[in-house]
Amino acid sequence: MASQAQTQVGIIGAGPAGLLLARLLRMHGIDSVILEQRDRAYVEGRVRAGVLEQGTASLLEEAGVAARLKREGLVHEGIEIVARDRHLRIDFRDLTGKAVVVYGQTEVTKDLIAARLAGDGPIIWNAADVAVHDIDGEQPTLTYRSDGQDHRLTCDFVAGCDGFHGVGRQSIPAQALQSFERVYPFGWLGILAEVPPCSHELIYARHERGFSLASMRSPTRSRYYIQCAVDEDLSAWPDARIWDELKLRLGPAAAAGMTTGPSIEKSVAPLRSFVVTPMRFGRLFLAGDAAHIVPPTGAKGLNLAASDVHYLSRALIAFYKKGQADALERYSESALARVWKAERFSWWMTTMLHKLHDESSFEAQMQLAELDYLASSRAAQTALAENYVGLPY
Amino acid sequence: MASQAQTQVGIIGAGPAGLLLARLLRMHGIDSVILEQRDRAYVEGRVRAGVLEQGTASLLEEAGVAARLKREGLVHEGIEIVARDRHLRIDFRDLTGKAVVVYGQTEVTKDLIAARLAGDGPIIWNAADVAVHDIDGEQPTLTYRSDGQDHRLTCDFVAGCDGFHGVGRQSIPAQALQSFERVYPFGWLGILAEVPPCSHELIYARHERGFSLASMRSPTRSRYYIQCAVDEDLSAWPDARIWDELKLRLGPAAAAGMTTGPSIEKSVAPLRSFVVTPMRFGRLFLAGDAAHIVPPTGAKGLNLAASDVHYLSRALIAFYKKGQADALERYSESALARVWKAERFSWWMTTMLHKLHDESSFEAQMQLAELDYLASSRAAQTALAENYVGLPY
Repeated sequence: MASQAQTQVGIIGAGPAGLLLARLLRMHGIDSVILEQRDRAYVEGRVRAGVLEQGTASLLEEAGVAARLKREGLVHEGIEIVARDRHLRIDFRDLTGKAVVVYGQTEVTKDLIAARLAGDGPIIWNAADVAVHDIDGEQPTLTYRSDGQDHRLTCDFVAGCDGFHGVGRQSIPAQALQSFERVYPFGWLGILAEVPPCSHELIYARHERGFSLASMRSPTRSRYYIQCAVDEDLSAWPDARIWDELKLRLGPAAAAGMTTGPSIEKSVAPLRSFVVTPMRFGRLFLAGDAAHIVPPTGAKGLNLAASDVHYLSRALIAFYKKGQADALERYSESALARVWKAERFSWWMTTMLHKLHDESSFEAQMQLAELDYLASSRAAQTALAENYVGLPY
Repeated sequence: MASQAQTQVGIIGAGPAGLLLARLLRMHGIDSVILEQRDRAYVEGRVRAGVLEQGTASLLEEAGVAARLKREGLVHEGIEIVARDRHLRIDFRDLTGKAVVVYGQTEVTKDLIAARLAGDGPIIWNAADVAVHDIDGEQPTLTYRSDGQDHRLTCDFVAGCDGFHGVGRQSIPAQALQSFERVYPFGWLGILAEVPPCSHELIYARHERGFSLASMRSPTRSRYYIQCAVDEDLSAWPDARIWDELKLRLGPAAAAGMTTGPSIEKSVAPLRSFVVTPMRFGRLFLAGDAAHIVPPTGAKGLNLAASDVHYLSRALIAFYKKGQADALERYSESALARVWKAERFSWWMTTMLHKLHDESSFEAQMQLAELDYLASSRAAQTALAENYVGLPY
C-alpha cells in the first residue's frame, strides 16, 4: 500500500530552482513538496557556479534568503578580458549601472535549504524512483520510494527542477518536445583551492594554448578553469601543472598576483548548449537545467534557473491568488525568450574566448577581431556588459 | 626596344582604389601613372557596390570629385532588417549621428576617371602583361605592353590596386605573405532593373528560404539579391521567378511596394572573406580587393578600398612633403586594423542573415536569437550601426 498525500505544487529537485520556487510560493501561501533523489549533504556539497546577476540577487532578497548573501557576497562591477597580452576591463557599473555578486551556488542552496527547513515545508531527501503521472490531466501525481515505502503525491501542478538528467523532462512525450544542442569540442578543467584570488575581479583569458578563467568563491577561496580536451585525463594534471598552465594563459600580471595551494576539488566538465521547447507540457513545468544547459563561460546557468523561477512563481501566484491562468499558459514563451538570449550570449562568449581553430585560420582571426573591436567600442562593451549583468525579465 | 618613362607612384588598376589614390596624390603635387588592363568602357560599366560610408564620401569630397555624389547620392539614415515577419529599423542617425550615401560604385569610378582625364595624369588603358620588378630595391619598375609596344615605367613606389586576381599581390614572394580565407557555401543572385525601389531604405531579410536584400542605385534603378547555390544555374531564373522569390523572402510589405521589370543585369556571385598580411612588401603597397575581400552583406568592399587609400595617400604625402617615412612603414598595420574589423562585421552580418544550417539546428536558433537580441538592445543596434556607417579611421 502506497502512502497518499496531496499538495498544490509538487517540485522535483532540491537545487536552487526547486528550492527558490518553493520559497517564493510559500511566501504567498502556496504549498509544495520537494522531492530530491540525493541526500542533503550531497546537495549542499555540489560545487557549481558563483556569479549572480543583480536580478537573481533581487529575487533571493524577495525570497527573504539574502541576509548572508548581502554580508558575504562580493559585488563585482566589472570583469577583465585578456587576449594577446592586452587587458580590457568591462566596466559593468559605468556601462549599465548594474553589477553582479560573487556568491557560490552552494551557499545559495544552503541558505534556501535552511529557510525551507525552518518551517516552509518538507524536502523529501533520498526520494527514489520518482515518477510523474497524468501530467496531461487535471491532477498530476508523483510517485516515489522513501524510507522503504511507496509514496503517492497528488498535485495541482508539477515543477521539473531536477536538472538535465532528471525525470522531469523525460516524463514529457518525446514527440511533444523539440531539442536543440551543441556539444563543444573541449572541456573545462576546474580547480578549487583555499587561496586568495589573484585579482579582485574575474579574468577571462583567450590564449593560443586555450581559454582560462580566474574566478573566486570568497576572498579566501579561488576557482580557476582551463580549457582542456573533453576526455582530459585528470591524473595527468597534478596541482603544480595546473598552476603553471594558469600562469601562462592568464598572463604575467595575474601570475604575479597568484597564490597557489593544494586543490580541494578538481574536475573536468564538458561544455554544452542545450534547449528544449516547449518548457511546459500539460501541468508539468520545467525550470533550470531540466530545460536548458549553457556553457559556463557567461555565468548564466544559475541565473537562468532563477529567471525561469521568476516567471513560473509569478504565474502560479497569479493562478492561485487571482484565478488567472494566462501567465501559466504563456510560461514557456516568456521563459524561453530570455533563455534564448542567454544561450546566445553564452555561445558567443564561449566561441570568442576558446581555442576552436588553428591560429592561422580565418576563424581564429575573427575571434581576435571580435576582441579588438570589443576593446575599441563602447557599444560592443555595453552589449557584453548588459548580457553579463543580466537582461531585464 | 621598350619605351622608358618615370613617375613617382606607379598605380596598377583603374578601379576606385587606384583612381582615388592617384587623385589625392595629384592634389599634393605627386605624380602617378595608372595602368589598367581593361578599357574605359569595361571599367565604367562594371556593376558593383553602392553604399558609401560617411568617411568614404568625405574622402571623395576631399578629392574634389563629390559634386555629382552630393547631387545624386541618396542619404540613408537607416536600414531595415526583416526576420520571422518582424521588421526592425536600425536608425543610424539616432544611434551614431551618422548616415551612409547610396551612390553606385560605377558612378564613383566615372567621376574619378573624368577628374583624372581632365589633366591629372595618364591612365594607360588596355595595358597588357603588366609585371612588377625590384619591389624590394630602391627603384621598382613596372613593365607592360600597350599599343603593340613594350613599356618600362620606373617608380619610387608601386600601388597594387588591381583587385583579387591582379598581379599586385602575386608579385610579392609567397613566403612573405600569410593569407586567411573563408569561402561561404552559397552565392548571391543579383538583378539590376530600371524600376523604383520597393522601399526608400535597404531591406536585409533573413528567411527560411534564404537571405535576400532589396537595394537600389538611384530612385529609378533597383538592385536586388537572393541567396542561392554557389553554382546556381542562371538559366533556371527567368526574371519572373526572381521577382516571385524576392516577394516571398522580403515579406508582404516589401512585396506590396515592389515594382517589377526586365532585368538589365543578372549574375551569380560567390561570397568570400579573404585577407592577406602584410599589405606591403618593400616598395609595393596593396590597397582594396588586392589585399582583402569581404562578402557584400555589410557593404564594406568599396569602403575598405577607400579606407586603405586614406592611409596610403596620407603616408605617401607625408613621405614626399615632409620626408617622413614612418606612416609608410606603418601602412600595413594601420590599414589592417580597420580591415579586420570590417571583415569581422561582414562575416557577422553574413552569418546572422543567411541560411547556413537546417532550421531545426542550434546554429539556426542562434541566428534567430541574435536577431531577437538585436531587436531588444540599443547597445547591439549601436554596434551594428557604427560598423555599417563606418568605424573611425
